[in-house]
Amino acid sequence: MSELRRDPIAGRWVIVSTDTPIKPEEYEHEEQHGWRPGACPFCYGNESLTPAEIVAVRDNHTPPNSPGWQVRVVPNKFPALQIEGDLERRPVGLYDMSNAIGAHEVIIETPYHHKDLSDLLDQEVTNILHMYRQRSLDLEKDRRFKYVMIFKNYGPSAGASLEHPHTQIIALPMVPKSVKEEIIGAQHYFEYRERCIFCDMIRQEMDEKERIVLENKNFIAFCPFVSRFPFEIWIMPKKHTSFFCETPFEAVPDLAVMLKGIIAKVRKVFGNPEYNFILHTSPINNPDSTNMDSYHWHLEFMPKLTRVAGFEWGTGFYLVPTPPESSAKLLREVTV
Amino acid sequence: MSELRRDPIAGRWVIVSTDTPIKPEEYEHEEQHGWRPGACPFCYGNESLTPAEIVAVRDNHTPPNSPGWQVRVVPNKFPALQIEGDLERRPVGLYDMSNAIGAHEVIIETPYHHKDLSDLLDQEVTNILHMYRQRSLDLEKDRRFKYVMIFKNYGPSAGASLEHPHTQIIALPMVPKSVKEEIIGAQHYFEYRERCIFCDMIRQEMDEKERIVLENKNFIAFCPFVSRFPFEIWIMPKKHTSFFCETPFEAVPDLAVMLKGIIAKVRKVFGNPEYNFILHTSPINNPDSTNMDSYHWHLEFMPKLTRVAGFEWGTGFYLVPTPPESSAKLLREVTV
Repeated sequence: MSELRRDPIAGRWVIVSTDTPIKPEEYEHEEQHGWRPGACPFCYGNESLTPAEIVAVRDNHTPPNSPGWQVRVVPNKFPALQIEGDLERRPVGLYDMSNAIGAHEVIIETPYHHKDLSDLLDQEVTNILHMYRQRSLDLEKDRRFKYVMIFKNYGPSAGASLEHPHTQIIALPMVPKSVKEEIIGAQHYFEYRERCIFCDMIRQEMDEKERIVLENKNFIAFCPFVSRFPFEIWIMPKKHTSFFCETPFEAVPDLAVMLKGIIAKVRKVFGNPEYNFILHTSPINNPDSTNMDSYHWHLEFMPKLTRVAGFEWGTGFYLVPTPPESSAKLLREVTV
Repeated sequence: MSELRRDPIAGRWVIVSTDTPIKPEEYEHEEQHGWRPGACPFCYGNESLTPAEIVAVRDNHTPPNSPGWQVRVVPNKFPALQIEGDLERRPVGLYDMSNAIGAHEVIIETPYHHKDLSDLLDQEVTNILHMYRQRSLDLEKDRRFKYVMIFKNYGPSAGASLEHPHTQIIALPMVPKSVKEEIIGAQHYFEYRERCIFCDMIRQEMDEKERIVLENKNFIAFCPFVSRFPFEIWIMPKKHTSFFCETPFEAVPDLAVMLKGIIAKVRKVFGNPEYNFILHTSPINNPDSTNMDSYHWHLEFMPKLTRVAGFEWGTGFYLVPTPPESSAKLLREVTV
């Protein structure tokens, strides 16, 4: 089992592979980096190459782990965290550690190896988003888990090791540092103003208009005033909603259209850029739910156009070579 | 002039290039990324290709901006921050912004285009480190600056745009988020234990021995128990020292030997890996110097072996595929 270790200075957790450590010669050099070789385990007919499926959207009468699915969820074959066991949190001198308990699943978005989200039908993307919701709600039942993180790495530089379109879902036994910071920051604002900072952000964006990329009935997409990356885009529900899973069923198609829309626009501008997106939502199994009024779920989309270097690592400062106002204007005007 | 913008949620600052924004077509795709083309501005004979030098270690009677130097400091030709002007901090709706005031200099470490630090003589590296100290002390005189950050990007994936070995130095008008976190974390520990957490870390490493890479009279190098990256190494002065610039003159050669040593060892294991290192020191021009007892300067060295993906961006969690204990053992045993 891997170990979770906690840095007592910044409160950062890391997952250390103590049972199957990678040897120096196994680290790929940048130049040689590409897709993992061999048959794609996420394509039709190769279902036996993944661990047994957890759930799938499939044609009637097709058995599990066979073709006939549209969206398929499997455990990650190389999980960062394991589902079995106890946390056993314990000190190691001035440090803390525990067993790396959690869940790590893969949502295979489509049987098509070469279609990214923006190439799929609205209904297909809607199904994927419903699957995000379904898996989150299921993982939430395990009281050991305090946070469910849904994210996508698209392209090798964005951290994907398989080309076939997929999203990852991780359930963690603690609220991660970055999420905690965001929640505390939003709470401070709420205590001071008695308003949700994200709702205020939406109001400001809708007033100023210049950073908006797309808007529909239920959602807004904009390049945040304090973007960390050029062409970073946030999608936010217009109505205050703390948990992603609380998104009303009938609003999900609007989210699908918007997610497809921003990816299509970014691809129109940059060809086929690599990207990450991360769904930021409220912690689960949290007896202290003071964040319900102050936290507002959203999706952060970050195309991989620049490299993070020593300055960013050292400071947490980011250099943004294109102002979000210019990025948003360009993305707003590009037709797809 | 560029803008500094502050995110009210996490308190993160970003530098936005509002005056010379980069256009979409100027972002290099990963595949095409290489060195900036043309003559190397950091080589002998090309001194006119850089802004006028600030200071240099040079042979007697050689004029500034001509060959004959061993270490040369110049303003960054494409600075992230500008030295002239006022901060003019102001609100923009719920956000904060100010002018991007600061300094951004380049320390050209050697006239040799292809020699990295571990190829230089001990005395040459000692001169570079003295130059770090000299420039820090000079920038500290400007009361607008609250933090001086020294860092090196080695290799294109690590964020370097020029191949010729160089270090960067940035003076910032505020203490950056990551530094502030580290200082507050160390203060909390100090309040509770009345001891410096870094001193305790050194004690634990020297007791347990398994994560030590190198040790000499004044410094220790180890793979931290909570490494974020595989083969991450921290160099720390054994004697409690809050500011890098307080390092006694006679201890600097020991630091040079250790820095050369860890780079040589990492290169022996990985060929010529790209890397970043960052000097973590105390904030300057700070009337509240409570961190003098609790903060301990150190250098964090991070070879670029893995890619940061959605999971790390979303959580601040890191996946470390090789335990620091294995990395340290390997590095300790490799002979250079």
